[in-house]
Amino acid sequence: MTDRNLTDAPVALTTTMLLEHWQGHRRLTRRVIEAFPDDQLFTFSAGGMRTFAQLATEMLQMIEPTMKGVLENDWSPGGYGRPGPTTKPDLLDAWDAADRALAESWPKITPERFHESASAFGLWTAPVITTLMYLVDNEIHHRGQGYVYLRMLGVTPPSFYQRRPQLAEPGEEER
Amino acid sequence: MTDRNLTDAPVALTTTMLLEHWQGHRRLTRRVIEAFPDDQLFTFSAGGMRTFAQLATEMLQMIEPTMKGVLENDWSPGGYGRPGPTTKPDLLDAWDAADRALAESWPKITPERFHESASAFGLWTAPVITTLMYLVDNEIHHRGQGYVYLRMLGVTPPSFYQRRPQLAEPGEEER
Repeated sequence: MTDRNLTDAPVALTTTMLLEHWQGHRRLTRRVIEAFPDDQLFTFSAGGMRTFAQLATEMLQMIEPTMKGVLENDWSPGGYGRPGPTTKPDLLDAWDAADRALAESWPKITPERFHESASAFGLWTAPVITTLMYLVDNEIHHRGQGYVYLRMLGVTPPSFYQRRPQLAEPGEEER
Repeated sequence: MTDRNLTDAPVALTTTMLLEHWQGHRRLTRRVIEAFPDDQLFTFSAGGMRTFAQLATEMLQMIEPTMKGVLENDWSPGGYGRPGPTTKPDLLDAWDAADRALAESWPKITPERFHESASAFGLWTAPVITTLMYLVDNEIHHRGQGYVYLRMLGVTPPSFYQRRPQLAEPGEEER
């Protein structure tokens, strides 16, 4: 995705729609964390991969440094890579704190900033929207891996299409 | 995501950017199909889940019926759910055919249509953009599961951030 004239181009997602879309995914990921047996969340993995606690910690630790980079062009890693929570309640608390940081930061991003190029963490140079989409995609990608872990543990994962703040009855839920 | 006034709202993604984003993901998923040993693609799974060939078949079979629904409001299932390809070359051919269908259909979607509500396949009612995002998300989700399968098979998966048409050298590739 590169810079382009946005004035007349048809819109797929407004910035508010993208935030809501991501927040829906974050609610689902939270349910996946909750679905893990307390111990397996921190111990189970397959194929030599990371535990789901480690994957979820990566997801949540990306948010604050990314928002700081987007808002202040300070791309220092912040808390990213620090040892994560070691209990499910602490992981859920950290998850919720990242949600609050996202909700508070997002409205401060100017419309132009989404399409400015930035050297994110010195790792890649891309429009800010590309970096934000990377975080959403990374969450979906690793959460899908959590689904495999849950199935291997004999636990039925939450429905992929349930993204609302409140869990509706299945019949009321959009798929 | 619901109907809203798009005229003045800040833009996250234009429709062209979303298509390119999806096509990047589809290139990566194709590489994941290629990375599987020919037999394991159709036989290996974990936790009682589907094989990666079955998951990839679901992804590609959703595209033509969805495009028909979006363009003609005909939400019949078409080829969805039919027995899929049984060899890797046939699966890759079907994958490429779905790519062509996507590339040909997408420019025909009117700007307004993305935000019209539609009863997709009689399964859910949502703005067309929500249904399109569902397909992208579903592909990322299941492809992430394919990464677990590959790791369990001792195969290193393609890098998650490689989405370009041509594989660049790692140093040239945006992450």
